Amino acid sequence: MIDRTIGIRQGKIVSMTTTTRPGPRERLLSAGRELTYEHGVNVGVDAILKRADVARRSLYQHFGGKDELIAEVLRTTAQADERRYEEALAKGGDDPRKRLLALFDTIATLTSAPTFHGCRYTAATLTLADQGHPAHAAVRTHKEHVHELLQAELEALGHPRPPQGADQLLLLIDGALAAGANRPDAPPGPAVRALAERVLDT
Amino acid sequence: MIDRTIGIRQGKIVSMTTTTRPGPRERLLSAGRELTYEHGVNVGVDAILKRADVARRSLYQHFGGKDELIAEVLRTTAQADERRYEEALAKGGDDPRKRLLALFDTIATLTSAPTFHGCRYTAATLTLADQGHPAHAAVRTHKEHVHELLQAELEALGHPRPPQGADQLLLLIDGALAAGANRPDAPPGPAVRALAERVLDT
Repeated sequence: MIDRTIGIRQGKIVSMTTTTRPGPRERLLSAGRELTYEHGVNVGVDAILKRADVARRSLYQHFGGKDELIAEVLRTTAQADERRYEEALAKGGDDPRKRLLALFDTIATLTSAPTFHGCRYTAATLTLADQGHPAHAAVRTHKEHVHELLQAELEALGHPRPPQGADQLLLLIDGALAAGANRPDAPPGPAVRALAERVLDT
Repeated sequence: MIDRTIGIRQGKIVSMTTTTRPGPRERLLSAGRELTYEHGVNVGVDAILKRADVARRSLYQHFGGKDELIAEVLRTTAQADERRYEEALAKGGDDPRKRLLALFDTIATLTSAPTFHGCRYTAATLTLADQGHPAHAAVRTHKEHVHELLQAELEALGHPRPPQGADQLLLLIDGALAAGANRPDAPPGPAVRALAERVLDT
């Protein structure tokens, strides 16, 4: 956060740019967001505390521990990612078929980027063996939100079975995100786009 | 490994069943296979050594370290999994379409099982941030083998574009394996089976 303020330097009133540092809760979330994407959800607590520059006590005060911090990181990225889904759909304008194809074009571009390292939600699911870890609920909620989004678009399109069609489109998204990471030399864009068209043209 | 041998007990020759314990290399591979599926590839070295009941020196003697053990675990499970793909195809007999559908039926069953926790190869890809880790090459080789298998079946089927069709079928497999883990309450069997039919009927 950048605040422009007025300050006094050497007796003169000058315009200054100061940085207001986010509080410990925000710094923990940011550090968790970055480090879990770089190193996975098994990243050590010490690395998170160091990057966030907060004391261990702060982590426990704000989140009760690492597990809930990881879950909250996923809930906040999910909100941002769901907005990105809506923005990608919006690129297709008002036509339901064009909207869904615009979304799959965005996924094709995303999964072909050299910086792409896979879906952070699938990574959390596959990395966290403890099925009681609160991150699992965060992932399921996010995937259900995406399913609802896809189902609404298929309803607008007049698809004969929107819930089943949304299952198929979500499987294609999960597949493109996994295949893009597993086979970096064979970007999944053309395959996922062709398969999505098949679902839409049912 | 069970060996039936002849032994001497209380002065009499008797038949005995003894257990020949696998050597340290095999025990490390077994422990690595089990623990990486239960806890992911970030499982600690100490846990592997404890389960394998071997000294740390053995790990370095046989594998040079944990990274190469993990890669070798993936290479050995990949061989077993590729045989399972061939067995699943064989259930469909000689008809190429039936063979591929039999494979997708097996994947539908596998991803709906309560013990299913996702694909160990995608898990390794997503968990290991270091792109130089030898596990990444093991995963890519496995996925290319599955791609070759699918492409050969599509050639037998007379599919118009076998390499592209195999990209699509592999994306569907990766998608079913990811979606089955991400959404345990919505098994991906029906969706992946319907999508696979679309690819075969191109």
